[in-house]
Amino acid sequence: MKILQGAALVGQSGGPTAAINATLSGVIRGALENAGAITKLYGMKNGIEGFLEERLVDLSGLFHNADGQIDMDKLELLCQTPAAALGSCRKKLPNPQEDKAFFENLIQLFQKYDIHYFFYIGGNDSMDTVAKLTAYLQDAEYDMCVMGVPKTIDNDLAGTDHTPGFGSAAKYIAATVSEIIRDCAVYTVPAVTIVEIMGRDAGWLTASAGLPTLTGRPAPDYIYLPEVPFSIDAFLEDVRRALARHPNVVIAVSEGVRDKEGHYAGESAQSGVTDAFGHRYLSGTGKALEMAVKEKIGCKVRSVELNISQRCGAHIQSAVDIQESIGVGKSAVEAAVAGKTGCMMAMERAEGEYTISFVPKEISGIANAVRSVPRDMIIPEGNNVTDTCLTYIFPLIQGECTQKYVDGLPAHLIIE
Amino acid sequence: MKILQGAALVGQSGGPTAAINATLSGVIRGALENAGAITKLYGMKNGIEGFLEERLVDLSGLFHNADGQIDMDKLELLCQTPAAALGSCRKKLPNPQEDKAFFENLIQLFQKYDIHYFFYIGGNDSMDTVAKLTAYLQDAEYDMCVMGVPKTIDNDLAGTDHTPGFGSAAKYIAATVSEIIRDCAVYTVPAVTIVEIMGRDAGWLTASAGLPTLTGRPAPDYIYLPEVPFSIDAFLEDVRRALARHPNVVIAVSEGVRDKEGHYAGESAQSGVTDAFGHRYLSGTGKALEMAVKEKIGCKVRSVELNISQRCGAHIQSAVDIQESIGVGKSAVEAAVAGKTGCMMAMERAEGEYTISFVPKEISGIANAVRSVPRDMIIPEGNNVTDTCLTYIFPLIQGECTQKYVDGLPAHLIIE
Repeated sequence: MKILQGAALVGQSGGPTAAINATLSGVIRGALENAGAITKLYGMKNGIEGFLEERLVDLSGLFHNADGQIDMDKLELLCQTPAAALGSCRKKLPNPQEDKAFFENLIQLFQKYDIHYFFYIGGNDSMDTVAKLTAYLQDAEYDMCVMGVPKTIDNDLAGTDHTPGFGSAAKYIAATVSEIIRDCAVYTVPAVTIVEIMGRDAGWLTASAGLPTLTGRPAPDYIYLPEVPFSIDAFLEDVRRALARHPNVVIAVSEGVRDKEGHYAGESAQSGVTDAFGHRYLSGTGKALEMAVKEKIGCKVRSVELNISQRCGAHIQSAVDIQESIGVGKSAVEAAVAGKTGCMMAMERAEGEYTISFVPKEISGIANAVRSVPRDMIIPEGNNVTDTCLTYIFPLIQGECTQKYVDGLPAHLIIE
Repeated sequence: MKILQGAALVGQSGGPTAAINATLSGVIRGALENAGAITKLYGMKNGIEGFLEERLVDLSGLFHNADGQIDMDKLELLCQTPAAALGSCRKKLPNPQEDKAFFENLIQLFQKYDIHYFFYIGGNDSMDTVAKLTAYLQDAEYDMCVMGVPKTIDNDLAGTDHTPGFGSAAKYIAATVSEIIRDCAVYTVPAVTIVEIMGRDAGWLTASAGLPTLTGRPAPDYIYLPEVPFSIDAFLEDVRRALARHPNVVIAVSEGVRDKEGHYAGESAQSGVTDAFGHRYLSGTGKALEMAVKEKIGCKVRSVELNISQRCGAHIQSAVDIQESIGVGKSAVEAAVAGKTGCMMAMERAEGEYTISFVPKEISGIANAVRSVPRDMIIPEGNNVTDTCLTYIFPLIQGECTQKYVDGLPAHLIIE
């Protein structure tokens, strides 16, 4: 395949993470270091949605300093900035067979800016975008390398050992839950604390709450993932058993747990709740379980929703995750310049000592597949994860980043 | 006054903070360095409640290494451990005039362990304990130095420029809100994010969310403190005005805001809500405001409760706060050994460049007084804080601690 010459376009899509900008910095560095092929790098604001409105940022200009050198300080600052610095979108592309006009319009825009490289950083929906664009380009008379670059805190993308962004979220969760456990340990009155963790369908993030046990440190008494049907009665039984052992019970639960009929815990526990305006009120999973414990057990109970901080808590990034996030972005560019297209840059783990290699994989087999926690990584009782699960996650939270603080707060790079 | 010789007792009380163990480490270091006066240091488990059950820890033994030297590594590990390492309690002592027997029993226990120094680390309730014990001892035939050592994330103790623990909580809040603002900035759809921050009566913590503005960085659009009567209509008007300016609106609100009749926002906005069991459901302030925005404005809205992480997020301690927390503990011991009693160790701020000195102050004028955010530190409209307020808080969040991580997670010292 011939080596293309032209501009490159990079975008970010889907939910924010603490590492998606590290991946962007990898793409930027890769592009700037391959100036022979990539003549200019554009960033699309708010993903493909912003590109359609021609909202572009000249990243080549932004990340070169006055001497014409790559601005490494700015790249580092980008790495420690949480959430998508270019903005994001949730736009799903139409099917190429059904809406050719949409893609013809896209191609015209690519031509207008001489764009021949397309890098899209995101999760499942973003890989769908990459797959559709790839499919369309197969029959189109336009040469362009299209590469998907994975990111998602949920760790649910197929075709890769794990996803960039997951490690930092897992580190935030394990550290925060460890702190919550210390907080809960100070009183002697029996009390239950329920920590609700993100993950609608995949339980990887919630599983991370168990990491301290691997090194003999306190961890939640029970961990409930969406991969196993949730029973409120079994849950209450678990809580009673834990309270019999010690006064300070801590539970980690995925927001996505559902009973065997598929009802979320927040639904079933509160089916009769209406608000002042007569609307049905749907609480979060943690709050619903809190109310169930209060009603059925009657002890002191509270719920803590880790909420969006678990995906944007960049001040406690995992160094391994950030290095890999940069690497997956940079290697995607290098693979594209070497002629690859229609791929997602995946990570492969070697046997034995933890090492990762970056491997381009055909996008068609990856998009729209979801990778859940396998049943054998959950204990038979369904209320905790196995050591195999934790051993898999463990390397991904290792190492701390030296963050730059300005006036007492982490410094962020804002791209206007 | 003669210099007492005997054992010392230290306890922690009230809600956990990220710096209360740094203060404990200061007391330990102060005691071990003054072995001429303090023959032995006991820690009471779960404060005065545990002492009454004679649950004591030999801290002198625990913090000396095998060579008989003070174990500085262990003291450092204690400093970075969140929540009260000795455990806490919420016990309020009886009035000395009304329950002499209670205090006679206490004195007998002091005698049993030859305790002549008493250090109590805590907030308002703990200073009440110190005040009552001091009052009783004035007429009792038992020589004991009693010192209160302040801590509270709420920063609401009288008699001191600020309280140890507040700076780290403020740093956590300002950093986390900064990250949330980045997270919210990625989409173009109008959306409101309401961040609920601790503080039932004092708004210092919520005010901290505004710190980024001091250095020209993005901060919440509006900040609501419990010191100003809260109006849901004015709030909705503020939100509408912010949405007219930009799509991503972020609001910081204290959990304690109430209307001019004294009703919490969580009460008034949901007066008609009942749960599946027919109970009245009281949501948090953030959730109540979320529902109000959804109902009255109808845009995308969510609420984020920072919850207990803001008081136990030790992984992002303020270095200034930790140094001061150690200092206030150590200087309390030094003052006691020099003959002071019946005091709280306060912090005084010098004019000009930020410097703090530790000054013992009579406990009688301090206990049970609450220091709120003065009205002139809140803008006239009541929906934000002034630069004077932020300038006061600013020095307290400066500096980062070099934390020890083990296997990817912050290391904690657990005292069994």
